[in-house]
Amino acid sequence: MALLLHLTGIDEAGWAKGFREAMPDYPVVTLADTFDPAEIEYIFVWKPAPDAFDGLVNLKAVLSLGAGVDALLEHPALPDVPIVRFVDDELTHCMSDYVISQVTMHQRLFTRYSAHQRAKVWSQLYPPASHEIAVGIMGLGVLGSDAAQKLSAIGFEVNGWSRSPKSIDGVEVFAGDARFDAFLAATDILVCLLPLTEETRGILNMKTFKALRRGRLVGGPVLVNAARGGHQKEADIVAALKDGTLGAASLDVFEIEPLPRTSPLWDIETCFITPHIAAISNERSGVTYFSKVIADHRAGNPLRNVVDRGRGY
Amino acid sequence: MALLLHLTGIDEAGWAKGFREAMPDYPVVTLADTFDPAEIEYIFVWKPAPDAFDGLVNLKAVLSLGAGVDALLEHPALPDVPIVRFVDDELTHCMSDYVISQVTMHQRLFTRYSAHQRAKVWSQLYPPASHEIAVGIMGLGVLGSDAAQKLSAIGFEVNGWSRSPKSIDGVEVFAGDARFDAFLAATDILVCLLPLTEETRGILNMKTFKALRRGRLVGGPVLVNAARGGHQKEADIVAALKDGTLGAASLDVFEIEPLPRTSPLWDIETCFITPHIAAISNERSGVTYFSKVIADHRAGNPLRNVVDRGRGY
Repeated sequence: MALLLHLTGIDEAGWAKGFREAMPDYPVVTLADTFDPAEIEYIFVWKPAPDAFDGLVNLKAVLSLGAGVDALLEHPALPDVPIVRFVDDELTHCMSDYVISQVTMHQRLFTRYSAHQRAKVWSQLYPPASHEIAVGIMGLGVLGSDAAQKLSAIGFEVNGWSRSPKSIDGVEVFAGDARFDAFLAATDILVCLLPLTEETRGILNMKTFKALRRGRLVGGPVLVNAARGGHQKEADIVAALKDGTLGAASLDVFEIEPLPRTSPLWDIETCFITPHIAAISNERSGVTYFSKVIADHRAGNPLRNVVDRGRGY
Repeated sequence: MALLLHLTGIDEAGWAKGFREAMPDYPVVTLADTFDPAEIEYIFVWKPAPDAFDGLVNLKAVLSLGAGVDALLEHPALPDVPIVRFVDDELTHCMSDYVISQVTMHQRLFTRYSAHQRAKVWSQLYPPASHEIAVGIMGLGVLGSDAAQKLSAIGFEVNGWSRSPKSIDGVEVFAGDARFDAFLAATDILVCLLPLTEETRGILNMKTFKALRRGRLVGGPVLVNAARGGHQKEADIVAALKDGTLGAASLDVFEIEPLPRTSPLWDIETCFITPHIAAISNERSGVTYFSKVIADHRAGNPLRNVVDRGRGY
């Protein structure tokens, strides 16, 4: 019995040290160690190689460092065992920080005032109050629910769109495809926190942008995407920002990352770009979370936060 | 008996219409009307002329459209009657919107990422979480208290500095001059919402900036001033942003407004400038508030929110 760490491109040694301290009675190995694949009960992965699961005949679960599992689900040799997603309070907290900052920046017309500052123009236009603006959050999982509640607490009108009906205090929930257009028509600032699935790929497109409510924000409605680059059609975002279908955008994710220097998005003053830093899984909270997952499971309890492969998240 | 409107540079006719509708049984006059000065019981002012109060021998109160009364208190012929300040829920709400937007923008390193975008640089640096950052609010009146509570609700550590001790849930209050340095030493993002008085004039200076906590925010501590230009020494802000004593700033008010085109502040990329639009008194809520002040006072009740001339606010 052992936990195998298979983390590509990040500090595997730091995680191994953390897990060994948290689980002194349970073996923890990395690819650099000598071990018998048949002894591995759990594998903790980030960007696993094609042969990552070879020989793991006694595997009980795959533990995913990423909160989004879209790439993992496309692994060609993914074994038929439960996949446990990382649900991280710290990641949730940081994602809400990002969402609040981008929503309030655009509510307060920061791209307009940045342009005025560069031109040394003093021109007063009072931004709308938060209670005059409706933020529409796509995806009401752990991340979307937390952001929705905090935005509501500081005064925004908040709409949410999710696959299935939910109830969140202070949030008007639109459930299912049939309610998508009604959700968009009631939304000034659209925030994407969806999982990436076949249903949601490319959902941030011109048709979606044209359906947003117009008039409350000078310049037009706003897009904030902190989910996956695969959700967005960047050519449509460029066109929408140029023709006024969108007034502004904040993008933390891109179709290709790092965003190529040739992308027209870099030069659009109404598009605020960050390099996929909205939120990251924290090592300390990751070790705490997954060592508890393993301890609980070994004690005979069911796994928590297991991915539904049919849904894709 | 009558209410006189004396509003310089704003839409006096709109306010007059509003008051006449709200108080159909009480006369409302403007300077354009014919009236007997001895009949004026209340005067509603914004930037009153030097002769504004001449002949108002039966005046019972001065009603101030501005929440800040520093300029009004310097009027050379201000009569010795109570001055009622405007305490406006809508103004409070908008001021908190402004404060939250500026605090979260800087927490999320927006000046750094704006510069990177202009240079088309993809460089990941994860911003600190809100709970790792302490916001210090100078002034815990209606505006400061509301901003403090909302910042605390979204996760920031919040300190407050006020003249007298106060108790606000989730906020560590430092009261009086003796605690000013301790307040600054515990603060990463300094927000000024003070009234402008002889004690607070010029308080945002190099000595204050050097006393702020360093290290939690890349680049250095941050200043946000949404109170009065008279609180700040702009030459010190320029020097502090250039030598790294401050990492960034958001200024909505200036020593001279409009900010002269010759000001070096315009060109500093780490200084975000807005043209005194953080919050404005709203006509609808102003009419509601002051018509109630007049009705209550005429019914024999004491005036609310009366300025203490000794304190200066």
